[in-house]
Amino acid sequence: MKCLTDLDDVEKIIGYKFINKTLLNQAFTHPSYNKGCASYERLEYVGDSVLNLLIAKQQFSLYPDLPPGCLTPLRAANVDTEKLARVAVKHNLHKYLRHGKPALERRIQRFMEVLPKYPLHSHGLIDAPKVLADVVESTIGAVFIDSNTCIDTTWEVTSILLDPIITPEMLQINPVKKLYELCQKYKLTVRLVDLWSKEGAFEVFVNNHLRGRGHCHAKKEIALNRAANAAYNEVLRILRVEDINTV
Amino acid sequence: MKCLTDLDDVEKIIGYKFINKTLLNQAFTHPSYNKGCASYERLEYVGDSVLNLLIAKQQFSLYPDLPPGCLTPLRAANVDTEKLARVAVKHNLHKYLRHGKPALERRIQRFMEVLPKYPLHSHGLIDAPKVLADVVESTIGAVFIDSNTCIDTTWEVTSILLDPIITPEMLQINPVKKLYELCQKYKLTVRLVDLWSKEGAFEVFVNNHLRGRGHCHAKKEIALNRAANAAYNEVLRILRVEDINTV
Repeated sequence: MKCLTDLDDVEKIIGYKFINKTLLNQAFTHPSYNKGCASYERLEYVGDSVLNLLIAKQQFSLYPDLPPGCLTPLRAANVDTEKLARVAVKHNLHKYLRHGKPALERRIQRFMEVLPKYPLHSHGLIDAPKVLADVVESTIGAVFIDSNTCIDTTWEVTSILLDPIITPEMLQINPVKKLYELCQKYKLTVRLVDLWSKEGAFEVFVNNHLRGRGHCHAKKEIALNRAANAAYNEVLRILRVEDINTV
Repeated sequence: MKCLTDLDDVEKIIGYKFINKTLLNQAFTHPSYNKGCASYERLEYVGDSVLNLLIAKQQFSLYPDLPPGCLTPLRAANVDTEKLARVAVKHNLHKYLRHGKPALERRIQRFMEVLPKYPLHSHGLIDAPKVLADVVESTIGAVFIDSNTCIDTTWEVTSILLDPIITPEMLQINPVKKLYELCQKYKLTVRLVDLWSKEGAFEVFVNNHLRGRGHCHAKKEIALNRAANAAYNEVLRILRVEDINTV
């Protein structure tokens, strides 16, 4: 299992036939797989840059009037860990990953179970295993190297994998913006308390009451989004069941 | 001055003749130049991604045994604001920039005056005007788009501009590492105090005495490097003139 033969299936999934099969093999080898094979890390490093450029190139022609301030979050939504982890499980790429860490399977399983709750993107509300994103990037890196750094060929593979590529219309309002809009509507004050460097957390006070708390030691923005989302839901709940003055 | 005719000179400097001259014109137009021209911002956005990929691609073939942990800081030294600002002044690209901010000229002048002190890279000890790095990225972005996204053509231009591309051997030890090595040699304790989120600063205590303080509100790592560099110089000075016990 998980040998070069299985990787024929991967070639079918991604619609690309490798000249150098070793590259494909390497793209699906986690650093924990200690059997003398090179791991995917270097291909992931290249793939990450390829992916960023491919999306920037597509955006440049598709949105001639959008400034980088709008293009940057749109690209992020298309290349961040959660989006790429979704790509991996959608195309079953995780099944071909060779690794030596049984715990990975459980993390992937848990990720797949919560996906239906957020059909497009959760803005970091769910924990996406980085290994899933890595394998998408290493695959893209491997195609880029194997195709003699052909941008067009790599884009063909990438655009199929990433489909649907998130557009400005599809980009959900992020939780912080959503919270501010709700509070503005009901004339409630919002105060964000940044405890991230000490505790990896954010707290959100609405009208001076603690209404949300979010944690994420790995990424500050995710901690903030989680806190804002918790506060948003809590404020909505109170608005539904109680008088606005009790918020 | 600074019209399309002048940009013929830029084509000579970068060794590339544009099919679409408007792209070149745009690459040299700062957002402050309010004459109805598109600014370089979108080209800079694309150029930044192109540059990252070009260096990653070169590293992948040049250093087959280096892991991403070594490639990442090496790439950073080749594409960060200071390196690119050096590229701009080395090739006189800043002279063709169209802008509406007289203060920019003075900042560029000051940058050029301190450059000889650090021939290769200062690790953030000097302030590099971002606009200089921007114009290098927008030029690379313009070549990439004009050449119909040809990686090889863009690399030809980029490798000439960036020459000398910093190699692992040329990469100077960063100030924090240098300080730790010195203190380890003389059995001195080092304590870094992170005041960055509050004051944009770092303090360095050696054997419990404050020996260095560094500021940079824009970037945490630069504040740290500045503090470490100040402490390194101070410790060296004390070691030279006094007994080691007084450090």
